[in-house]
Parts: sequence; structure tokens; C-alpha cells
Amino acid sequence: MDIEDEVLGRVSPSPARRKRVEKAANTLLAHVLEAINDTGLPLEATLQGSVAKDTYTSTPDIDVFILFPESTSRKDLETVGLGIGKSVLGGEERYAEHPYVHGIYSGYEVDLVPCFRISSPVGLKSAVDRTPFHTTYVKSHLAEKQKADVRLLKQFMKGIGAYGAEAKVQGFSGYLVELLVLRYGDFRSVLAAAGSWKKGEVLDLEGRGERFDTPLVFYDPVDSSRNVASAVSMDSMACFQHAAKAYLDSPSIRFFFPRAPKTWPLPKIKKEMDKRGTGLLVVSLKRPKLIDDDLFPQMKKTAEGLQAALEAGEFSVVATSTHPMEGRVDLVFELMAEELPRVMKHVGPPVWIGHAVGFLEKWSGKAVVGPYIENGRWVALVERKYRRAPELVRGEATKAALGSSFRDLAGMEVRDTAGSLKADMKRTLSRHLDRTLPWER
Amino acid sequence: MDIEDEVLGRVSPSPARRKRVEKAANTLLAHVLEAINDTGLPLEATLQGSVAKDTYTSTPDIDVFILFPESTSRKDLETVGLGIGKSVLGGEERYAEHPYVHGIYSGYEVDLVPCFRISSPVGLKSAVDRTPFHTTYVKSHLAEKQKADVRLLKQFMKGIGAYGAEAKVQGFSGYLVELLVLRYGDFRSVLAAAGSWKKGEVLDLEGRGERFDTPLVFYDPVDSSRNVASAVSMDSMACFQHAAKAYLDSPSIRFFFPRAPKTWPLPKIKKEMDKRGTGLLVVSLKRPKLIDDDLFPQMKKTAEGLQAALEAGEFSVVATSTHPMEGRVDLVFELMAEELPRVMKHVGPPVWIGHAVGFLEKWSGKAVVGPYIENGRWVALVERKYRRAPELVRGEATKAALGSSFRDLAGMEVRDTAGSLKADMKRTLSRHLDRTLPWER
Repeated sequence: MDIEDEVLGRVSPSPARRKRVEKAANTLLAHVLEAINDTGLPLEATLQGSVAKDTYTSTPDIDVFILFPESTSRKDLETVGLGIGKSVLGGEERYAEHPYVHGIYSGYEVDLVPCFRISSPVGLKSAVDRTPFHTTYVKSHLAEKQKADVRLLKQFMKGIGAYGAEAKVQGFSGYLVELLVLRYGDFRSVLAAAGSWKKGEVLDLEGRGERFDTPLVFYDPVDSSRNVASAVSMDSMACFQHAAKAYLDSPSIRFFFPRAPKTWPLPKIKKEMDKRGTGLLVVSLKRPKLIDDDLFPQMKKTAEGLQAALEAGEFSVVATSTHPMEGRVDLVFELMAEELPRVMKHVGPPVWIGHAVGFLEKWSGKAVVGPYIENGRWVALVERKYRRAPELVRGEATKAALGSSFRDLAGMEVRDTAGSLKADMKRTLSRHLDRTLPWER
Repeated sequence: MDIEDEVLGRVSPSPARRKRVEKAANTLLAHVLEAINDTGLPLEATLQGSVAKDTYTSTPDIDVFILFPESTSRKDLETVGLGIGKSVLGGEERYAEHPYVHGIYSGYEVDLVPCFRISSPVGLKSAVDRTPFHTTYVKSHLAEKQKADVRLLKQFMKGIGAYGAEAKVQGFSGYLVELLVLRYGDFRSVLAAAGSWKKGEVLDLEGRGERFDTPLVFYDPVDSSRNVASAVSMDSMACFQHAAKAYLDSPSIRFFFPRAPKTWPLPKIKKEMDKRGTGLLVVSLKRPKLIDDDLFPQMKKTAEGLQAALEAGEFSVVATSTHPMEGRVDLVFELMAEELPRVMKHVGPPVWIGHAVGFLEKWSGKAVVGPYIENGRWVALVERKYRRAPELVRGEATKAALGSSFRDLAGMEVRDTAGSLKADMKRTLSRHLDRTLPWER
């Protein structure tokens, strides 16, 4: 297939590039071993990640793991491990489940990760301890020619926006892509199989463990108590399934290398809004200093909290989207109606309930209409607190369930349709309004 | 209590009136017996209803039942029964469960009803056969002084709009009122007890039969397989319960004799609509020639069918009401919004379902936005078929579930808010908008 050959031509390393990567990795490994020697401790160093497995698609990160005896204290592991990392890389400390050192070596991004050398991945001390087992499993099972299939599937996932287990994407990790190729044999067989996956599809290579309740389940072949696909969201799964079918029906290089999303000019945005007849509410908040894995869930939670407040106020939300920008985040709520009538219908308790008296006392003389009886319940048409969505957000945002770093509502700006049809919102609104699939751009 | 004395003064017959009623009833009975004699058949005639029980509150109807041996054929019962009725009254035949003759005698409305003389009301041939047992039960159990309590409770039910088992009211029959007084002892004890009735309250005097699933259950003391309160709707029950509490808290003659509902002048109606900010949709249909017991359920069904169609089209209905008028019926739908945005959100099947392809094929290139994936499902914003409620009714009414006599939509006129704020709609709109409780008018 011409298209897939073309993709491989772009993502497989040339012999020269592979040689450069291998040289950098080997020199780095030698440096780490020297530093280990200096400690006098019985440590090992191994190459991990896509360089070790030869499955990278672009300039790869180089991952070197420093293995400590299982008897080492966590404190010693961190002190010694980070010491070695800094002496080799002079880089910055980062924190995942435990600390590691990130830096640049011969022009490559490098992670130096201290971990325990455990005998079995079951009952491990920390998640990174499992990585060497993953590397070994893939290296010993993946055939040479399947590396091309892994590269194709990785690039396909990247192209359709479903690559990566991180919170921003909630998609397919590199290891999951490798396992899918092992499970189905090659790139096209994975796509063909995905077309008939059901919600909650369960896959394995070496047997299954306890039940998981995620859209996709893939039991880790080195530890059946883990679900490698736990990060895959409903939307990533559905997007991949649809893309797989669409690609097999009508292949195109655009699945692997889509065009960048366009930012529309204002007149086009206005025309689109006229066509829909819906309203816009944009809430901008100061962007807190958080890594993406913290920022994205908090942004989502904040949008959900505000949407719940809007819906409690009877605003019907057609679509919501979140947009991290330079210095701010924009939360977009597309509304069926920007303005609601003066009254809202307040359905109270059944007349025969004791506390019905409280409803009567509260609303008698205060309701616009009623209280009157409908289907045995007290009902009143009462004056609506907020007729326009921006007023509701300004009045209720502090009471909504927001991401913790947004709870102070720092820098909050709230715009209605007219207020948001401005030049500085073009990018945000284009992203919200343009629902074209990546490969159809 | 002054108020109740005043009510009794107005609704209890004066000695002179009682004498006139009794004289008319006795003369009528004598006439019927003569007519029976002429047939040579072993028939009886008895006085039934509120005259027999002395519980009437205004000029009463006089009910005389002609009892036939149980061995009589239904055909003979009808032929002979109606023959006697016509010879005495010359009135018109009417049909309930079986035919009877209605006419005027000495200025009173009279019903002459043929029925079977059965030994027990259990397993009777027709519902009217049970009436003589009801009369006997009430006459033998109701104390002389409780007749005043029955009159008070009947008038109270009339005043609050809950008197009568007919479809128009769906309230408390005269017999049910009598049983309530027997059950609780007197007028005020009934009111006090009603305040703590629950939904589905079950009452009896002589034991219970099978379970009924109505808002109120009162087992017929002469036949525990029957529920005397089967006609009582949720709203009649709730209205009575609330009125009972309200009266005991703060008694007033207005509970028994409310002011008539007012018809508002147009400027007042307009002001009320401005205050609410809601929209109006009035559907007028030709009034079919039906008795009330058929008209009211059909009118209700028609309004419910149209409401369901409106809600399927995403119009939010705040309140619905039905109004039988001279030659037409008006169905009023009060709407949260008169006009909806151009698009509606169409949530399709999950991406992993086989027939998802159908959704894609249907909407690709045709939807205003999408199809795109949201929570694993295909979603499209599609052009709404009806943006205004009158258009929806004109386009969809033939497909709605309507009362059979309205299904031809004869004489249909559909008005929006502006179109309905006209002089000929004043009465209808006043009834719809004015939710004042009868005793607070």
C-alpha cells in the first residue's frame, strides 16, 4: 500500500538516524554505568522505552532506568538515583510516582529513572518498576517486521488525536499500541478488529485478571491485575474505532498527517453562529501554573461544574469545550437560548406531605403565579433569579464544583455571544465550532 | 360556629320546601305504582337518591327506581321500564350503563330508573342495581343530626370544585360524602382527618377487598369489591386536603360559596403575560356533540397528545388547560419560549454499534454541525423542523394521539401569543392565567 509505505518513509528512522540515536543511547548508558561505579553500590542501568524497543516514530526521548536492589530504602533510592542523574545530565528533577531526572544529552531529551530491581512485576513497589518487564516482553515477542506496524499504528493514533495516556489526550499509550499489534498481528488487522469492538471490549495476551469497568480493557501480559488501557476515554476509543473503519474504507495520508486546525476569521465565525441560532457564553479564567496532567482534569471539572450550575438554572447547554491559552483558559458553553423568560416553574412537594406547608408559606404572595395544585403537587411560577447566563455565572460560580486551582476564579471574565465575537476569541471559538474530523480537514 | 350555621341556613330545606319535595316525590311514586299495576307484573318502585336519604342541598332531582324480578330478561326490563317511565313522565330516554327516563314532574327533575331486585349487591348485573343497597345503608346508619354534616360537606366540596364523580370534575360523589361523614362522625372531623391523608389513603366501614391503585380508596360497605372513590383524581384529592386544612385554620363562607371566576380585561391579560415572560399557544377546535362525560376525557387526551408533540419538538410547556366554549374548545399551552434556535441537538447511537453507519450516512453533509463524537456517541446539530410552536401544531397535529372526536381537527385555529391576545379569547385566557383558589377569589 503506497500510503502506508509513504508514512513509514516519514516515520521510520533512516539507517543514519538510527545510528545517531543508538550512539547517543550507548554513550549515555556508559556514562551512567561510570557514575554507578563511583557509588560502589550493586546497581544496574538499562535502556528502556521506544529506543530499546526500536519502535519510535520521530526524534525519540531516551529513557535509562537505574535498577536498585529491592532491599534499598526508598530514601536511598531517591538520593542516590537523583545524584547519579544530576552528575550525568545536570538536568532538572521531575516527579511522577517518584522522582527522576530530565535533561538533554547529545541533543536528545533524556529521562534517568531510578527504580527497584524486582523479581516479578506482580506486587511491585511503584509503577515504574514494571517498565523493564514491559520492555522485555515487547522485545522478546515483537517480530522485526511488526516494528513497522507499531510505527504505523502510533502515527495513526497521533494523526487522529488519540495517542498518549496523558490527561490531555486520554488515549492509547505506546505500550498499548505495541500490545495491539502483538494481539492482532499487524497494523491493518488492528484496524479491522477495532471496527467491531464493543463498549467495554476486553483484550489480553496472557490471560485475564479481575474485571475493569473502562471503555477498553487490555490486561497487562506481565501483570494481569493491571489494565493497560485504563486511560482510554470513551471518546478516544470511539474516535479510533470510527477512524479505523473510515481509513479501511477510504485510506488517506491525512489520517497520519492531518492538516492543522484552522482559525476562522471573525465574519466566518459570525456566519456560523447565525446558521446555528444558538448563543455563546465564554468564561475565561487565569491559567494556573500546573503541569498538563493536572491542568486538563481541573479545567474539565471546572467546565462541568459551571455547566451543572447553568443547567440547574435551566439553561440548555448544547456543547461545552475547554481551551488552554497563553495565560488564561477559555471555557465555552454553547446555549440553546441566551435569555430565559421571567418566570420559572417550581414544582413543590405533594399536597399530602407535612412539609408542603413550608412551600406554601414560602411562596404565597411571593410567587408570580400560584402556588396552585398540579397532579397533586404544589406548583408555583416564581421569578427567575437569572434570566441571562452571564449573570448566573457571575452570581453562582463561587458555589459551583470547580477544579481546586480555579476555585478562586482569578481573572474571571464572562462574555455573552456579542461579547465573545472578538478578535482575541477567534482561536477559541474556531476550535469550539469546527467539529471537522482531523483527517477531513 | 356561625359560618356553618349560615351555610346550613342556605342549603338545608325549610320545612315548607321539604314538604313540597316530599309531596312531589310521593305523588310521583303513586303514579309509578299505578303504572306498574297496569302491567300486571310483580314490580316494585322505591324512592332513591338524596331525597330518600334527606341529604340534598338545593332543589333536588327525584330518583325513582323500578325493581324487576332477577329472572326478567334485560330486554323486558328495558321495554317495560322505559314504557312505565314514558307513561308517567313523557320524558326523554337517557343512557347510563342501561337506559332510563328523564323528565320533569311538579317542577322537579326526575329520573325513572329500571333495575333488578337482587338479593345481594355482590355479583350484581348492573351498577344501578347497587343503588338501593347504598340508600338502605345510608338511611340505616346516618343519624338524624349527621344529615347536617353531609349537607355541609357536600356544599364544601361544591364550593372548592371537587363535588361530583363525573369526568368534568373527577371528584367526590354524594355517596362518598355520606360515607366520609359516617366514617369520621361529623363535618369537622372529616376535614381534620383529610389533612393527614396520604397518597393512596385507604378507608372503609365494613372491611376491605382487593387492592386499588387510586389516590383515594373507600371500600363500598355494601360490596367490598368496589372502590367508591375510584373517580377521585389526584388534583381533587389534593384540593380537598388543602382546602380542609385552610378552612380549619381560617374558616370562611367563601369555601362553601366562592365568588365566580372573573374574566379579565385584555390589558390585564397582557400585563400578566408581560410579567411571566412566557409564550401562549392556543389551539381551538370545533366542539363535537358529546355529553360531558365523553367530551372532557377526549379534550384532555387531545391536549396531552398535542403537548407530547410540542415536547418532542423541544418546546417546554409550563402549563396546559382545556376550555369547552360555545361551539368550540380552546386548548391553551403556555410555553417557556415561543421560538427555538435554528439547530437542534440530535444524539445518535454509540460509535461501536453496527447501525451507527446509518446515522453517519443520514447526516453527513446534511447536518449543520457534525456528526461528531461526544461521550462515545455520534452527535449532530441538525436543522430544526419547527422553530415556532404554531408551525409544529399545524404540521404534526394529524400524527398526535388525539381524542377520537377531535381526530379530524375540524375547525382548527392555531394562535401564537400575539394572535391569542384578542377579545374572543378573554374568557379562556383568564381561566388559564388565574390560578387563584376558589375560596380566595
